[in-house]
Formats: sequence, C-alpha cells, structure tokens
Amino acid sequence: MSYEAYFESNREQHLDELKQWLSIPSISALSEHKGDMQKSAEWVADALKRAGLEQVEIHQTSGHPIVYAEHLHAPGKPTVLIYGHYDVQPVDPLHLWTTPPFEPDIREGKLYARGAADDKGQLFLHIKAIEAILKQEQKLPVNVKLIIEGEEEISSESLPPFLQANLDKLAADVILISDTHLLAPGKPAISTGLRGLCSLEVAVNTANTDLHSGTYGGGVPNALHALVALLATLHDDQGRVSVEGFYEGVPELSPLMREEFAKLKLDEDKLRAGLGLEALYGEEGFSFPERTGARPTLELNGVYGGFQGEGTKTVIPKEAHAKITCRLVGSQNPQDILDKIQRHLKAHIQPGAKLTVTPREKAFAFNIDPEHRMLQLAADAYETVYGTRALFTKDGGSIPIVELFSRLLSVPVVMMGFGLPDENLHAPNEHFNLENFDKGLLTIVEFLKRL
Amino acid sequence: MSYEAYFESNREQHLDELKQWLSIPSISALSEHKGDMQKSAEWVADALKRAGLEQVEIHQTSGHPIVYAEHLHAPGKPTVLIYGHYDVQPVDPLHLWTTPPFEPDIREGKLYARGAADDKGQLFLHIKAIEAILKQEQKLPVNVKLIIEGEEEISSESLPPFLQANLDKLAADVILISDTHLLAPGKPAISTGLRGLCSLEVAVNTANTDLHSGTYGGGVPNALHALVALLATLHDDQGRVSVEGFYEGVPELSPLMREEFAKLKLDEDKLRAGLGLEALYGEEGFSFPERTGARPTLELNGVYGGFQGEGTKTVIPKEAHAKITCRLVGSQNPQDILDKIQRHLKAHIQPGAKLTVTPREKAFAFNIDPEHRMLQLAADAYETVYGTRALFTKDGGSIPIVELFSRLLSVPVVMMGFGLPDENLHAPNEHFNLENFDKGLLTIVEFLKRL
Repeated sequence: MSYEAYFESNREQHLDELKQWLSIPSISALSEHKGDMQKSAEWVADALKRAGLEQVEIHQTSGHPIVYAEHLHAPGKPTVLIYGHYDVQPVDPLHLWTTPPFEPDIREGKLYARGAADDKGQLFLHIKAIEAILKQEQKLPVNVKLIIEGEEEISSESLPPFLQANLDKLAADVILISDTHLLAPGKPAISTGLRGLCSLEVAVNTANTDLHSGTYGGGVPNALHALVALLATLHDDQGRVSVEGFYEGVPELSPLMREEFAKLKLDEDKLRAGLGLEALYGEEGFSFPERTGARPTLELNGVYGGFQGEGTKTVIPKEAHAKITCRLVGSQNPQDILDKIQRHLKAHIQPGAKLTVTPREKAFAFNIDPEHRMLQLAADAYETVYGTRALFTKDGGSIPIVELFSRLLSVPVVMMGFGLPDENLHAPNEHFNLENFDKGLLTIVEFLKRL
Repeated sequence: MSYEAYFESNREQHLDELKQWLSIPSISALSEHKGDMQKSAEWVADALKRAGLEQVEIHQTSGHPIVYAEHLHAPGKPTVLIYGHYDVQPVDPLHLWTTPPFEPDIREGKLYARGAADDKGQLFLHIKAIEAILKQEQKLPVNVKLIIEGEEEISSESLPPFLQANLDKLAADVILISDTHLLAPGKPAISTGLRGLCSLEVAVNTANTDLHSGTYGGGVPNALHALVALLATLHDDQGRVSVEGFYEGVPELSPLMREEFAKLKLDEDKLRAGLGLEALYGEEGFSFPERTGARPTLELNGVYGGFQGEGTKTVIPKEAHAKITCRLVGSQNPQDILDKIQRHLKAHIQPGAKLTVTPREKAFAFNIDPEHRMLQLAADAYETVYGTRALFTKDGGSIPIVELFSRLLSVPVVMMGFGLPDENLHAPNEHFNLENFDKGLLTIVEFLKRL
C-alpha cells in the first residue's frame, strides 16, 4: 500500500501513542521530575523497539539518560544519525494553559501538550517513518542510528562526553534533526544556521534581612533598585546590547545574505498582529528575519525580588534576582561573552550592593552551506510532499549540540523542521499542527529513500 | 500590691493569652484569611470584656470588622481614645522564619511571631494595663475608649467612614497609640511625626503570549526589558527620586531640626553592621535619621516577571510587574504624588509596551509639637519606668489613620511605642522584646494615672 494510505490507516494508533508519551511530564530543569525523565527515556526506548530498531540502549549519565538505537542492514549505503530530545521546558504560568500541559488534547487539527512540537512530536515522526518503511518493505534504504537525549532544554551537559566516548559507534554520513520549524503553513524551510547560546544568573544582595520601608526607607540600599538600575544598563534605547565588545565576531550582513532574508517575504504586520504587539522591536536597520536569524541578543528571561502577593507590602527587599540568556552568531565565543557581561555587571553595580553572577549554559553558533548535496536532497523531499521547494533559513534558536555534532563527527547536519513559528514553544498552549504531522512522516520517508 | 508585683505574678498568664491571639493568622492583605480576620476581631473583643471594658462592639464593615469598647466612669477627667490594629503583614518568604510565624515562640527573652510587635503585642499592653488598674483599684483614673481596626496594613479603608459617622461617640481629649518603637534598648522615644504614604502597582504588557527567545529574540519587545528600563528612571544615581515635582511640599530641614536629629546620636556604623550592609545609602547631605524621618522616598517593594524556577528557561516574558510605595513628608499630597508618578511612567515607557498603573493607598504625613502638654506627660511616664526621659523623634513609618484621627477629632495624638527598631516588622522573624513588654505595661499605667 502507498505510504499515504499506510499513515492514514495507522493515524489514530500513532496519535494515541504520541499522546501517551506527551503525558509524561519530563521537565529536565526541575529535579522533582527526575523519575519522569527515566519514564520518558524508557517510553521512547520501547517505541524504538516496537519500530524494529536494534541495539536499543538506555545509557545512564550523571544527568538524564541517553537513548541509543540502530538499524545497520544497508551495506554500501549512507548512514543517517538522527538526533532528538525527550525532555521538555517547564510549564508555568500554568493558569494560561487551556488544557493541562500533560493531558494532550486535539482541537481544530492541532495537538496541544508540552513537548507536542518541541521535540517529542517531531522526533516521533522519525520513529514512525522508520517503522513504516520496515513494515512496508522489511528493510531500510539506508543505515540509521538514533541518539536521543534528555537534557536539550538544560544545556546538554551529558551529551558531549558521550559523543567523545562513542565517536566510532556514532560515525555517520549525515545528521538529521527535526527540532526547527516551517516558515509558515505550507512553506517548508531548512535551517542552515542556528544561533549559539550562553546563559547566566544574577543575584543582588543588600541587607541581611528584608527591612520595613517606614523605618529604613531612604536610608538603606534596596536590592531591587540596585538590580533594575544594573539591568537597565545592558541595552541602549535602540535595543542594542551595551556590553563592551559584545558584537565582536558578529559577521556583517552581506548584500547576498540580505537578499536571502528578503526572499522569505515575511509579512511583519501580520506577525505583529498575530502576537498582539503594538510594534515589533529591535536593532535599527535590520528586518525581523535578520534580527532573529543573524543578530545576537541578550534577553532577560526572569526577574524577581520582594513581595509578589496580593495587595501591598511595605518591604525593602534584601535580595533580587535575574535570569539572562544570550543568542550568539558568527564566531562569538560563549565563554568570552559571559566574561564580558560579568565585567559589565561588576562595573555597573551600585556601591553597597553585593553582586553574584553564576554562568550556566554555553554553545557556539552553527552554520552550513545551503548548496551542500544533503541539504539539496532534503529540499527535494520537501518539494515532493509539500509541492513547493524548501527555503534555506537561518534559525534564531539554539540546539547547542548541533555545532558539537558537526564538529566532532565531521559531517553535515540537515535540520528538517515540521513545527510552525506560532506553536508556543516554551510557552503555555504549546501545540503541533497535525497537517505537518502527516506531511512530516511522508517527507522523512521520502528523504531516507532519496539518500 | 504594687503594679510591678501584679504584672510579675500575672506574667505567664498574660503571655499565654497573647500567644493565643498571635496564633490567629490575621493577614488582612490576603483574602483567604477573611475568616481569620473575624476570629482575630472576636478574640480581642473577648479580651476587652475580660479586662472589664464595657459596650464592647464588633462593627462589620465592607472590609474587616472594627472593634470598639469603652469605660466612662471618671466624670470630669480626660478621655483617652486608644487606637490599635489586629491585622498583620503577610509572612513570605516563609522559609526564612526560624519558627513558624503563627506558632509564637519565646527565645532569649523575645517573643517571636508575626504581629508580636506590629501591632498585637503593643495593643495588648493597653488592654492588660487597663485590666490591671481595674483589678487593683476597681476604677480607672480617666475615661477610656478603644478603637481597634483590621485594615491598618492595607490602607484602613473602612476606618475613615466609621470615624466620620461616629465623631461624637469617639470624642476624646487625647489619642494614644502604641505602634512605633524605642530608639534603642532602654532609650524611649515619642514620635512627633509620621511619614505619609502612597502606593501603586505597575504592569507592563507586550505580546499576547510568552515567546521563545530563539525564534523571536531580538525582534520583539521583552516586557522585562521595558519594565527595568522604566523603573531605572525613577531614581538618579544618588538615590534621589527623579519624578518631576516629587519634592514639592517637602520642608527644608532647619538648623533646629537638624539639632534634634543629631541629639539621637545614632551610631551609623553599628546600624550598618547590624543590618549586614556594606554601606548605608541615601540622599547626599542627610544623616540616616534625617533620611528616614524627614525625607520622602519611592521604594520598589516587589518586581517580578518571567521564569523564576530552577534552571534556565529561554522565554521572552509577555508581562512584568512592580509594586511601589512612597513615604511622604511635610505637605506632600499623596494623590498629587500618584499623579506625578503616573505621568512620569507614561512619559518613560518604551514604545510598543503597554503600561497599566493602579493607584492603591494614600495617606498624608502627620506632625505634632513636642512641647504639647500631653506629650510631656508621656515623657514623664517613660522617665518613671525607664529612668531616662523619652526623646522626641520623627518616625519614618506611616500609620495612615493618625493624621485623619488628629484632623477629624481635633485632638493631639501621643505615639508611645514599645517596639525596637530591629524587631523585623514586616519581615521574617518578627519579634517583641519582653523587657519592653514588662516596662510597657508599667509605662501605660503610669501615663493613665498622670493624666
């Protein structure tokens, strides 16, 4: 039977399986979900076995387990290493979810759940595409290996040593990842670049206890004042990062690159309206795709201190906190950027306030030539299924491990995404459009066959 | 028997009673404690009856109840109106309390509990002083009325209409309040001034959902960036408030006033070390007592937005919040100050971010001449018990109702405090030093007799 017919007749079964997986709250950032991480790893290992993959292994690490599987029965054919992750982002603010994040729900052709698109839903397509080929043809057109981690959302600390220790086992001709997105419905895209990342936490401490603003107000430092004054120095009023040397290593945008970005024909008004924004925002002289694809950022992801409850509390907080991430491009070195930010913060903290800076994640940016044969084959596969050729884009997100994969294994990385830009990744009501669920399965089958 | 002997022999019983009251979590700001507010009002009404007071009434209001009681059997003698409050501040962060805030505990001569000093503990002294005189002498040397509210920590909204409607019933020759503090152990003080207060909440909104910082970072506004940039404009780098016109109505400090403040002989180094501060902080050219007693402030009491959990979350928050209170002096008008702040915020909010400002509490500052006979009598009473004459101070805190009481009833207000400055009012581990519990009882008896 045709693959269309196969996937159609198995659709309900596939969605039921995926919903099972999405019900496991595998939030890697929160230690209380340690057990759920193991469950999620076991679930995917079982799914791999059911699909007909071999050597399915769950490797324990000092963090969350890494799952490996393979099917190596196509001598002389290329080997594809498929990467994905079974961990998900935290879910707060919970009250903004229409249905609970770990009770998957299908509404208007969309599957709602934390992880529906990032990345369980997309990774699931690969497992089911392989299963389909094995069921239909009893063999695969290529050799495949899968490596699935549980720390993508928390900086993939266990994966690099695992890669280093298993270079031979993981050797491949191409790496295939579905953790990016289409440009828009019906408009496939292949990412040829990912931004790098670094992150840090900032704490400001003043007194040894919270103080009454009547008795002490006006006479002692306020940790929140010190923090907001400090954070406000990080950008100028045009949205540019004010940290000295931050833009070193950021490539100038060539006319050719600007042309590529212009080809995306992004409707900025529509984007703005869809997000409920009065105006887009960012560096002067750059379009939205350029700002998010080719420019670095420094973002406050969380700021907190003092009283957050109902009503008024006349307190002078003794401590205040901020969480910061940067997206990096070109040759920006994450460690170097962390050092520069730390120097900036130390130079700008108000006298009498104690500053603590804790560096966290680090990842370089990644880039690949869109003319590479593997990427062209992927574009062919998309064209067959979607009826339109994929555009080559620079993706603003970071998959910290991509640059490392590419460097350690010396192979091209094909980023073949099936999400959509507005599917609320990392936010309440994350979802995955089932049209791309269906087309994704066919596109992956098509790509594996074309290899 | 002497009053010393009486209070000594009843000490354990008195402390047990107070602990009972302190066990009721009467947090006026949190609606889930509505029932506890009623319980706390009933507890104090019962205590008043046990003390021998008459006409004990619990008046329901649109907020929390007001308790009234009287004892009017001293014709020709002055009438004292005693004011206090049975509500307390919220208790978070809860994990910083050594013992739970509503499980009163005595350690090293100090009673630890939320409300131990502010204000249940201090109000309790008045009830037990009256009870003592009635038990010992079967009559009071003066007429007394008590009015006890449950909304002092949330702006006393129900009290003004109650005062207006009961001017005759509440008529008195002097108002007596114990909700302030000594200068230091063994150094009594009578407050001749209170700062006024106004408060507001600020919200900044950008997109209609939290956004992924990879996909959108650099291209959309971040509510936290907009908020910290906005809040940072509220002060200059010397700690002065930058809101236009904020200092209108603030009196210049005369050489005489500066002399009064200097008499306090505050050891700023010791204060700094006690609070664990690297440096005190505030307006150039003013001492700590001047900054906190005679200068206005604008304080951030809470700021929050985005991710606060463990680890990293690469989110661009769609909203961010701040809670702000100002302490006011002289003739600063709280409504006028709120208007000025609102104008400032509107003028400085970043384009594309939506600003919402919600005004909350409002209270004028209060001042009284230290030469007033009633204040001199209070100083005499302190001298008898503490062996040292009370100093006249300007208190940095606000008891919003004092200015109103004084204005509506046209009588002097005696603020006779028994707390200490470092008793963690509004903070974890609030406590009340029992030395001042014992001396407070005697001082109140002494004051009532001297009237």
